[in-house]
Amino acid sequence: MHVTIEQAETAIRAARDKAAELGTQMCIAVVDSGGNLKAFYRMDDAWVGSIDIAQKKAKTSVFFGMKTGQIGQLSQPGGSLYGIEHSNDGLITFPGGIPIVDEDGVMSGAIGVSGSTVENDDAVAQAGAQAIGKTELPAHPWRT
Amino acid sequence: MHVTIEQAETAIRAARDKAAELGTQMCIAVVDSGGNLKAFYRMDDAWVGSIDIAQKKAKTSVFFGMKTGQIGQLSQPGGSLYGIEHSNDGLITFPGGIPIVDEDGVMSGAIGVSGSTVENDDAVAQAGAQAIGKTELPAHPWRT
Amino acid sequence: MHVTIEQAETAIRAARDKAAELGTQMCIAVVDSGGNLKAFYRMDDAWVGSIDIAQKKAKTSVFFGMKTGQIGQLSQPGGSLYGIEHSNDGLITFPGGIPIVDEDGVMSGAIGVSGSTVENDDAVAQAGAQAIGKTELPAHPWRT
Amino acid sequence: MHVTIEQAETAIRAARDKAAELGTQMCIAVVDSGGNLKAFYRMDDAWVGSIDIAQKKAKTSVFFGMKTGQIGQLSQPGGSLYGIEHSNDGLITFPGGIPIVDEDGVMSGAIGVSGSTVENDDAVAQAGAQAIGKTELPAHPWRT
Repeated sequence: MHVTIEQAETAIRAARDKAAELGTQMCIAVVDSGGNLKAFYRMDDAWVGSIDIAQKKAKTSVFFGMKTGQIGQLSQPGGSLYGIEHSNDGLITFPGGIPIVDEDGVMSGAIGVSGSTVENDDAVAQAGAQAIGKTELPAHPWRT
Repeated sequence: MHVTIEQAETAIRAARDKAAELGTQMCIAVVDSGGNLKAFYRMDDAWVGSIDIAQKKAKTSVFFGMKTGQIGQLSQPGGSLYGIEHSNDGLITFPGGIPIVDEDGVMSGAIGVSGSTVENDDAVAQAGAQAIGKTELPAHPWRT
Repeated sequence: MHVTIEQAETAIRAARDKAAELGTQMCIAVVDSGGNLKAFYRMDDAWVGSIDIAQKKAKTSVFFGMKTGQIGQLSQPGGSLYGIEHSNDGLITFPGGIPIVDEDGVMSGAIGVSGSTVENDDAVAQAGAQAIGKTELPAHPWRT
Repeated sequence: MHVTIEQAETAIRAARDKAAELGTQMCIAVVDSGGNLKAFYRMDDAWVGSIDIAQKKAKTSVFFGMKTGQIGQLSQPGGSLYGIEHSNDGLITFPGGIPIVDEDGVMSGAIGVSGSTVENDDAVAQAGAQAIGKTELPAHPWRT
């Protein structure tokens, strides 16, 4: 199953509420399990540069069925995935992208958030993912 | 003024309602006056290929302060703007993109819709633009 | 010889004055004989979409040592250069790009203008080119 | 407010004078608050490779409302923004890009300079930004 637009809206609402609670201005993107954009929301006064980063975080996360920060730990100089950011028209591998996984462990999409510190970006993405997903650890990395 | 996220959501809701009325599945994009994405909404079962087209229609419309179909009439073989689609990383010049203009004639953004016939795309974009804009004919093509 | 920055500024000033005389808001680009940007000027309220088109017109013109409109006559369906716009990261082949050529017939660069009708774009580009060039017909299509 | 062309010219003139004082040949770019090019100036004998870098520095700076060097400190290996340069069609995160901010703390654009050491690039950008801006620290990262 792909994430539905109703789910995407629920995730964005939860993410937006968390962002407001933190006093931040965020770009929030939801992609389906094919990495294709489902919904996008840019809060007023959010950084323009975050439009692309939020989407790339969501794509990166769904492309590999991992949180973006997990990939970033492997892509450092000397790491096993060093330079992976050059693939797929650009990946973003620091925190803020999280898979959306259902109760059967099937990944239906991902959420990506950008606009503040990576800690805040990650917290806002978590709030969004948890509103519709059961875990961030897919048993099945890909399913359409 | 750029389009606000509240306005963008109002436009998308109106466009979505029109799409449902027409029995179509649409991608709906709203960009600000600089052509940067503000909000995006993909209805379930909409064409994946429409994700990019909806965004390009919105950008094309705000880039020149015109409905996309007006540009398309000039870009036909032998027309004065033949080949303009090769600029700006790709333009879409058939109907479905409409500027959002306030009461002072200032363009604050644009809406782009893709997913059905161009007639339906245009009707859905109109519904969205009219929900927050006053006219589709900006007096000022770009605010400073 | 490449166009100098002093010449580029002279050309832009002349183009800007012509644009003001015509009551238009233009983007004006000057490139050197290698097609690399030398100077760029966007009048207030000019179309955002014209930023790229003005630069592409200047590049297209210097790439082939012709006015852009001349190439556009050959790139129509059935024409000998049909589809040439797909090369070089995108060409623009309607009027508004003009080579800058010195008294020895050497092309030192080109000017590209976008922001109004192609007639106005071409007139403004002409004003700019004539301020520093002697003819629009290079004897030597390329020289650094 | 976006930066006006008059302001952009004032900034470029101040930057150019500083570059001459330092005996350097610079590319100088000014973008508006949406990251779209407003004006560009390449001094004679400046590196061709600096054309793109100057523009990317200006864009990077306005995209995040920071000096480029501040982002570069966070994007080092092991840093929180490692790899951010892969977003937005390429960012440049070493010094030489500075936001332009008005007396109300609103960012109207940014200046980017490339052509010498990063210390010189930054000094020239500072001269340009200070000629029209009040501070390099926007209170509002993006105007609405």
